[in-house]
Amino acid sequence: MTRVHNFSAGPAVLPESVLLEVQKELIDWHGAGLSVMEMSHRSKEYQSIIDDATATALRLIGCGDNFDVIFLGGGASMQFLMLPLNFCPEDKVANYINTGAWSTSALKEAVKAGKKMHVAASSEDKEFTYIPKTYQLSENPAYLHITTNNTIRGTEYYEIPEVPADVPLVADMSSNFLSRPYDFSKFSLIYAGAQKNIGPAGVTVVFIRKDYQEKLLGNLPTMLDYKTHISKGSMFNTPPCFPIYVVGKVLHWIEDFGGLKEMEKHNKEKAAYVYDILDSSNFYRGTVVKEDRSLMNIPFRLPTEELEAKFISEAKANRMNNLKGHRSVGGCRASLYNSLPMESAKALNSFMKEFEAANK
Amino acid sequence: MTRVHNFSAGPAVLPESVLLEVQKELIDWHGAGLSVMEMSHRSKEYQSIIDDATATALRLIGCGDNFDVIFLGGGASMQFLMLPLNFCPEDKVANYINTGAWSTSALKEAVKAGKKMHVAASSEDKEFTYIPKTYQLSENPAYLHITTNNTIRGTEYYEIPEVPADVPLVADMSSNFLSRPYDFSKFSLIYAGAQKNIGPAGVTVVFIRKDYQEKLLGNLPTMLDYKTHISKGSMFNTPPCFPIYVVGKVLHWIEDFGGLKEMEKHNKEKAAYVYDILDSSNFYRGTVVKEDRSLMNIPFRLPTEELEAKFISEAKANRMNNLKGHRSVGGCRASLYNSLPMESAKALNSFMKEFEAANK
Repeated sequence: MTRVHNFSAGPAVLPESVLLEVQKELIDWHGAGLSVMEMSHRSKEYQSIIDDATATALRLIGCGDNFDVIFLGGGASMQFLMLPLNFCPEDKVANYINTGAWSTSALKEAVKAGKKMHVAASSEDKEFTYIPKTYQLSENPAYLHITTNNTIRGTEYYEIPEVPADVPLVADMSSNFLSRPYDFSKFSLIYAGAQKNIGPAGVTVVFIRKDYQEKLLGNLPTMLDYKTHISKGSMFNTPPCFPIYVVGKVLHWIEDFGGLKEMEKHNKEKAAYVYDILDSSNFYRGTVVKEDRSLMNIPFRLPTEELEAKFISEAKANRMNNLKGHRSVGGCRASLYNSLPMESAKALNSFMKEFEAANK
Repeated sequence: MTRVHNFSAGPAVLPESVLLEVQKELIDWHGAGLSVMEMSHRSKEYQSIIDDATATALRLIGCGDNFDVIFLGGGASMQFLMLPLNFCPEDKVANYINTGAWSTSALKEAVKAGKKMHVAASSEDKEFTYIPKTYQLSENPAYLHITTNNTIRGTEYYEIPEVPADVPLVADMSSNFLSRPYDFSKFSLIYAGAQKNIGPAGVTVVFIRKDYQEKLLGNLPTMLDYKTHISKGSMFNTPPCFPIYVVGKVLHWIEDFGGLKEMEKHNKEKAAYVYDILDSSNFYRGTVVKEDRSLMNIPFRLPTEELEAKFISEAKANRMNNLKGHRSVGGCRASLYNSLPMESAKALNSFMKEFEAANK
């Protein structure tokens, strides 16, 4: 069996070593005589699995003592709703920096939740091809929300914005979570759908600072209230057990890799295999400003749409999958998450050179 | 490797043949060179997986042409909220028959959602040990909600209540879904968490009659609106891809088993191995009325709590897991879902006889 080079924007490639472990344990986890999928979530075996995933997640962010982490179903899209419901009171305003489709969805959901909303900065004027460097808060901000990496347009925060001491900073980190060593202590709440960098689809991790939990509004429908899930350690109801188990293994893989500094080095090296071509070629063209370009998602264009279609199709024939850009923007996109092996980035680099030589 | 006899109330035992298939395909699904966990949910490979699960689910209920089915994260507990939000307008009343802890949670959530709620019948007067045979609707009922099987107390509907033609019947079928051939055409909406009878935790199936969809209220937060998910075929956001894939396999297993009639026969035969003992013994005692007792979950008591603890512990030593009753009611409980093999029911029967002989 030859594995494909998987440039999917998510769900995405997972470490082969993790998949092999999951496969080995699939029918009989650690001699327990059953699959993780068959375990009562109240069993001591499953408790050890979720406890381990929790502890590893808190270790990896480096300031875990200050946070609780919960594992929820429903996707990051559900967090677009839960965040304002839990943390934006009537007399305050939910603030957002709009850097693309996902931040736009997040801020619209605050309005749907019946909250006052303010766009503190936006890069919509230039089709979200950069990260705004300044912002203007509203009066009485409940929080400032940022999207640290923008999967569709391919921009990423290198520097986290400074906020006044009394303004909680919250982030959707779905598409670059644990891919680089941010100072996580600057955030009051962080959420990330697992299916980009840390596991399969079906689970979202939410980190909430312990001191921020004093501001939880409460009095919400049970499943939408963070308190429900924090107080029960993600076990108020049956959690997405198997996805959490796989996430736990990917988190260990990141730790064993050397942690976030090593991960960032690895990700920079991989991204360079693509960016070096974009920077030196007149055939390929990057679409975002250089200083903000993402290490995770690299959109690029070719001279014509016909050539783009040919590129995607020939790449696929060479076992390089999912190089088509998001349907909303077209073109090509390579996603190079944590788990993408170096040889996949090298293979893409070679293919891009060959394709240019043959088609220019 | 010897598999345990797994009497867990959920997440629960899965068919060994399904687990073996999942294991085989784990790293390389059908020669695609990647795991299902690594597939873009927008890929044609994954689309074929979810389409197949959808079609199989609709075939199994026997009246699938009248329904749409969606796969959602968040658990059945999220449906306790979504149902009244989507289907109970201001001027109507959400009606519930209260048959235990889960119906109680469902009806409380209607109140939390700001709806008028009416308990049309309840068996709380006798600790939920029976199914009410009559009920009294409120004025202007939006719907009547029942819980077809009660996991904790061990009662089950054998006959579905008749409702007036203009009153939609909705059901939480989480713990006996596809275990017997109900007339599903009587229902306007059916939901079931997968982790009892049809798959691993992390996905909930929701069937909504096409003509009932005219009554969807809309104007809700995006992720809580059934319209969002129906219109996008469960793909508005990234669904719980891997759990859905496993559900699809279990649904095929049920179909290959002979469908719901054969499944019911199998389940009756298994349950008889336990009920025959409860009926003939002075040592073991069933806790619910005979005519309503569940084929799925069988709670029972022993003469003393000490003997119950000894029973659970010795059973475990004999590779019979999860025979402890729910923490809210104590005692013992055997869950015998679809996938539990006949030999597990036989093993429990033998063990119960031996334990009685040794301890009476």
